[in-house]
Amino acid sequence: MSNAELMETYETSLHQLAGHGPRNVAVLKDVFESIDGHLKSDNYGSGPVIEGFQEQMAEFLGKQSAVFFPSGTMAQQIALRIWCDQQGIKKVAYHPLSHLEIHEEDGLKELHGIETILLADKGRVIELADVLSMDEKIACLLLELPQREIGGQLPSFETLEAISAYCREQGIKLHLDGARILECLPYYQKTIKEVCDLFDSVYLSMYKGIGGIAGAILAGDQDFMALSKIWKKRHGGDLISLYPYILSAETYFAQRKDRMAAYYENAVELASFFNRCTGISTIPTVPVTNMFHVHFQDTAEQIAPLLSQVQQMMNIGLTRYLRAENTGCSFELSIGDQYEKIPKGKVIVTFEWLAEKMRNEFNQKL
Amino acid sequence: MSNAELMETYETSLHQLAGHGPRNVAVLKDVFESIDGHLKSDNYGSGPVIEGFQEQMAEFLGKQSAVFFPSGTMAQQIALRIWCDQQGIKKVAYHPLSHLEIHEEDGLKELHGIETILLADKGRVIELADVLSMDEKIACLLLELPQREIGGQLPSFETLEAISAYCREQGIKLHLDGARILECLPYYQKTIKEVCDLFDSVYLSMYKGIGGIAGAILAGDQDFMALSKIWKKRHGGDLISLYPYILSAETYFAQRKDRMAAYYENAVELASFFNRCTGISTIPTVPVTNMFHVHFQDTAEQIAPLLSQVQQMMNIGLTRYLRAENTGCSFELSIGDQYEKIPKGKVIVTFEWLAEKMRNEFNQKL
Repeated sequence: MSNAELMETYETSLHQLAGHGPRNVAVLKDVFESIDGHLKSDNYGSGPVIEGFQEQMAEFLGKQSAVFFPSGTMAQQIALRIWCDQQGIKKVAYHPLSHLEIHEEDGLKELHGIETILLADKGRVIELADVLSMDEKIACLLLELPQREIGGQLPSFETLEAISAYCREQGIKLHLDGARILECLPYYQKTIKEVCDLFDSVYLSMYKGIGGIAGAILAGDQDFMALSKIWKKRHGGDLISLYPYILSAETYFAQRKDRMAAYYENAVELASFFNRCTGISTIPTVPVTNMFHVHFQDTAEQIAPLLSQVQQMMNIGLTRYLRAENTGCSFELSIGDQYEKIPKGKVIVTFEWLAEKMRNEFNQKL
Repeated sequence: MSNAELMETYETSLHQLAGHGPRNVAVLKDVFESIDGHLKSDNYGSGPVIEGFQEQMAEFLGKQSAVFFPSGTMAQQIALRIWCDQQGIKKVAYHPLSHLEIHEEDGLKELHGIETILLADKGRVIELADVLSMDEKIACLLLELPQREIGGQLPSFETLEAISAYCREQGIKLHLDGARILECLPYYQKTIKEVCDLFDSVYLSMYKGIGGIAGAILAGDQDFMALSKIWKKRHGGDLISLYPYILSAETYFAQRKDRMAAYYENAVELASFFNRCTGISTIPTVPVTNMFHVHFQDTAEQIAPLLSQVQQMMNIGLTRYLRAENTGCSFELSIGDQYEKIPKGKVIVTFEWLAEKMRNEFNQKL
């Protein structure tokens, strides 16, 4: 049984564990049904639709100014470029599994000629000691909260405070890759402003936890944001109309910004269900956000048919893919609106059955 | 009376000479009303919504492959970068009023380190002699058809053929800034494929003559387009969902691609009305596309109140702005769906009145 069958049984399931629902055109239609057709488009970064939302987000994040970008890739490269130009140092530091390092075709290097220093080991988050041990001068340190590629792990808030204080002392700019920063607040038990206060510039995704169609917010002080608009035009991101993304971001932000605690608690519960199964463990063991990774000791070839059967029989989608790891395989889960729509009894039965199948699988090998 | 009043009287007019209609949210709502909400989003450049439209556009333009970009700014910088890398020469040539030279905050230079040679004088299009006279080696020549900043002027088709033949002979890549290329076909009396055949790469806007929300198509051979996808990711243009732009582009492309001859003929008629007025002339005198510039001998301060009065009394919007020129002032007109919705008698009366007012203005000065 192939991964294609896993995807098939996932997508035809009545329920899915992860996410807010299918990424289809209804996401857009639902938003625009209630918006008056006479509302004027934004126009190359101007007009009430874009300016109003930018002001709202600047206020929310506790920054002087905010700009809406088509993507986080664009917003973050630009943030780092501005800090490098300002400091006269074309070097930044971030985690080895940063989005910029592994998902952007080296745009930061190819377009901006910025060198990177990789801090910490792949398997853990950046700690204060990593920052202190840097012997090269950098313009900016980027922290990704949570560290997505290792299951959404977080440093302690005290560590963040210490890193921030050190960077300010050393004149190093601190940038927050906060694609999923709202998802961290319930664990930190901090307000968004308390977190953003530690950083000179902040990026927030409009389609991850918030579930919009696409787009990103970059926030910082007035001068920084004014420069970011020039770079946005240079990147080809100053579109004549961004309202399809802005208005959907605004709608889903209002709907979901206060739901992060529920997603987080559900992630903790769900991870515990997985961890009760032989041969399955989650990273982190106890999630600190709405996300975690599910690891299997067995290979994707062994696990895929088993999960497909569960998905088909229980009508609950667990995952559409399995990624081969050094040992075994894994997949990622981000909890959104969908999880709590599944009757709890059904979730429990599903995991009882999965646990039994994993036990049998394990016993067969003995 | 200020330009604010000119804008006010323009926007409250029942009719407008230019464009397809207001750029408001209805442009999106009209498209999505008839699209099934279950249709799946594109996903980082993959999926039927984006792949289907790209195939359709490649076939339409007569190229091997096409890629949908969020903007022409992004698409064209990337096209020039790829040709420069391939040729090992970081230099391109284009018109002094090219979009890349005056509207993109020098993205081509700042992001890609590409030098530019400006061909021809500002007031006229690039001719074969300009190309022949270049003594520096370039990777790529960009031709903008029509040349927007000088009223949408065009070289002859024979000139295009000669420039194309020369570039092929010399190993110079030829790129078409065809933001408004469909608008040129009625004058050239050529098919889109006959025009595109002369070029190695082609860009077409989805929101100018076509009237979509935003977006651009870049087309060329397979290898070139495969590279363009890598650069699209680097630029931050490989969004998780581009369907709001793609589906609207598809709809309006189908609606308007065959209407360019009507827009062109209406532009020719409308320019003749302006040219009958004392102190007003159009560039070009006889349009060769759906666009032209309207020039006044008098200053914006003199002309604005006069046009505002005409707009208010006749309920027809002529322009929302006037741009100061070395002598007098000007505005741009691009004809779309709106012009032919105005009763012809009303247009004629409006211009008779405008002609009389311009005559009086002129006589007062004698």
